[in-house]
Amino acid sequence: MDIEKELQRQLEIIQRGAAEIVPLEDLGNKLKNSLISGQPLQVKLGLDPTAPDIHLGHTVVLHKLRQFQDLGHQVTIIIGDFTGRIGDPTGKSETRKQLTEEEVNANAQTYRDQIFKVLDKGKTRLVFNSQWLAPLRFQDVIELAAKTTVARMLERDDFSKRFKENLPISVHEFFYPLMQGYDSVALKTDIELGGTDQKFNLLMGRTLQREYGQEPQVALMMPILEGLDGVQKMSKSLGNYIGINESPREMYGKTMSIADELMLRYFELVTRVSMEDIRTFSEGLVTGSIHPRDLKMRLAREIVTMYHGAEEALAAEREFKNIFQKGDLPDDIPVVTVVESQLTEGRVWLPRLMVEAGLAGSTSEAKRLVQQGAVKVGEDRITDPEAEIPVAEGVIIRAGKRKFAQIRVEP
Amino acid sequence: MDIEKELQRQLEIIQRGAAEIVPLEDLGNKLKNSLISGQPLQVKLGLDPTAPDIHLGHTVVLHKLRQFQDLGHQVTIIIGDFTGRIGDPTGKSETRKQLTEEEVNANAQTYRDQIFKVLDKGKTRLVFNSQWLAPLRFQDVIELAAKTTVARMLERDDFSKRFKENLPISVHEFFYPLMQGYDSVALKTDIELGGTDQKFNLLMGRTLQREYGQEPQVALMMPILEGLDGVQKMSKSLGNYIGINESPREMYGKTMSIADELMLRYFELVTRVSMEDIRTFSEGLVTGSIHPRDLKMRLAREIVTMYHGAEEALAAEREFKNIFQKGDLPDDIPVVTVVESQLTEGRVWLPRLMVEAGLAGSTSEAKRLVQQGAVKVGEDRITDPEAEIPVAEGVIIRAGKRKFAQIRVEP
Repeated sequence: MDIEKELQRQLEIIQRGAAEIVPLEDLGNKLKNSLISGQPLQVKLGLDPTAPDIHLGHTVVLHKLRQFQDLGHQVTIIIGDFTGRIGDPTGKSETRKQLTEEEVNANAQTYRDQIFKVLDKGKTRLVFNSQWLAPLRFQDVIELAAKTTVARMLERDDFSKRFKENLPISVHEFFYPLMQGYDSVALKTDIELGGTDQKFNLLMGRTLQREYGQEPQVALMMPILEGLDGVQKMSKSLGNYIGINESPREMYGKTMSIADELMLRYFELVTRVSMEDIRTFSEGLVTGSIHPRDLKMRLAREIVTMYHGAEEALAAEREFKNIFQKGDLPDDIPVVTVVESQLTEGRVWLPRLMVEAGLAGSTSEAKRLVQQGAVKVGEDRITDPEAEIPVAEGVIIRAGKRKFAQIRVEP
Repeated sequence: MDIEKELQRQLEIIQRGAAEIVPLEDLGNKLKNSLISGQPLQVKLGLDPTAPDIHLGHTVVLHKLRQFQDLGHQVTIIIGDFTGRIGDPTGKSETRKQLTEEEVNANAQTYRDQIFKVLDKGKTRLVFNSQWLAPLRFQDVIELAAKTTVARMLERDDFSKRFKENLPISVHEFFYPLMQGYDSVALKTDIELGGTDQKFNLLMGRTLQREYGQEPQVALMMPILEGLDGVQKMSKSLGNYIGINESPREMYGKTMSIADELMLRYFELVTRVSMEDIRTFSEGLVTGSIHPRDLKMRLAREIVTMYHGAEEALAAEREFKNIFQKGDLPDDIPVVTVVESQLTEGRVWLPRLMVEAGLAGSTSEAKRLVQQGAVKVGEDRITDPEAEIPVAEGVIIRAGKRKFAQIRVEP
């Protein structure tokens, strides 16, 4: 094997999409030593044990881990169960309840079910940090805390901000970065991954490893993925996300809703399409040989294929084309059941029906949709938000382009 | 028993000499409850395990503890062996070595030998804080640290100062006040004693007890005793101290060297003379019915009696009078041995001899004393710092009023 050539190949793959690598020089040295010795690098990612449903934003680092796996390195996922047992590090909520052991195990299982859609299961080690943190005694903790200073801690963005604003920072919160850093000591990590918002914690790992006599890890930071709106970071609470457990149709449709400008970034960060292909797409968009909509459909297909397989992806694409390109209805329309005996004169207030049918989150949202002219009952577009519509078996209500419900009447 | 009357009596004794009691109201309530229930109060003092030789400055709090004992309360001395094992809290020295278990035990014994000259041994409990601190696990430590904030910690004088001056504060240093406070939780302390410099730590005990669901302790702060110079605090490093292991003569002589203005304060803080007597002294000084020198001799006698017994005190007083009031020599003059064969023409350089005799710490100090006219050889006052004096058996060298040495010549 030509080591220099292989080194360049690995460096190129690892740098794909990375926001920052600190220090890049160490990465090169570690990779080179690994190539010479044949020893894989230890690559680490820490996960919060609260187990959110994973969305594409989370997969940015998972894809990077997968690339390391494909290059033959050893990936370890740390479930921060010890950290999670203790409370809330962000100060956002003072009283986040501690998770029980059962909850932590259940959440870990949820993670497993999801992350192996991106990671290679056979090459992934999954560990709990309570394994090495729980047995530490007061004296060990003191020695850990002695490795850093208060001033350094207060450089962390959220601490710095709260300190300046005279908002309380509990002393125990200092232990979150220390725990995360100590995880790297416990695992002798070579490379730790995280979002750019994790920079402080990743560098704490470097500091602690040095203090404990180890070669410091490389901090590899991936960018924070923008959500469907193209502006804010993808997050469940902002509602601008694509969950990896969503149905093929939702996943496909949501992907089709992103801005054209985001397409190439999504290809780079959350698909396994080669950089060579992505460069071709980029050129095609510039020269006009590729139509943005076609490329976005390719992106949607790639994403759905990853989580549901090629067949489902094609089906989702067919359905999408039927609805949006031909105006047809999807195959499986949700049903909203109406109990006739409870109606007044066989009619129902449209916004309430829409909420029951899941077409709107609230009657006020439903009224807004009606006023915007986005709602059809059967073939009639309704614009009066106070409309009382007659119910009849099989009538289809449509809100916007992608949401449907069909009325079923019970006596 | 008339509870109100007894309460007033106890309050008066406890407030004797105290600099600050936080809050005084709680002290009253605790004493009253104790009188009603017959349960003694738990009174605590924490000691650093580095075991300095105890001097009168340290006895200020010990006297206060003794008063509590005499009132029937329970005194516990905590040897901070766990705290001491860990390192240095002040940041003065980065690398104070950790004490071994043997050293801690030896130091504790030194404490015992000294503190029971003031405390009632039969009513004193002596414990090591490693007993409850060493077994704490990481999770317990985190819960402890969660009880306070970074901003609160940075209010502590030494932290605040270092933080402002951009001097490093290690994160583990935050644990010193937390440990001291947790000691109060572990012992369910009612009253903690300390110098005024301990205020932050004593109040941390209040905070932590409240957080752990206990009634908060009262912080009783005693003033810092001025040393012989009457200005700086008594301390070994400043050399302005009276050690409780010093000889009766040294102790007596040093006491006689304090400024008149300090006498009543010393009576109040470091003797067991009643406040009634002290008030009489105070009046006598004002009216002139008491001569300051006589009162200071009474103070010196009280202090020596406490540590060496009445007989030694009277002997020290007799000797003091002989030297300073009649110009006589003391009974036991230290000897400096001169080897005749090593001399040049039977003479020796006076400053070197003075150093060997312990009359000066260095030849430059000796030269200064000579130049100041403070040195006599036999009956001759010597003022030439380069003087080579003839040596002869039995000749007495005197430096200042209280230091003597007698020459012994060996062949």
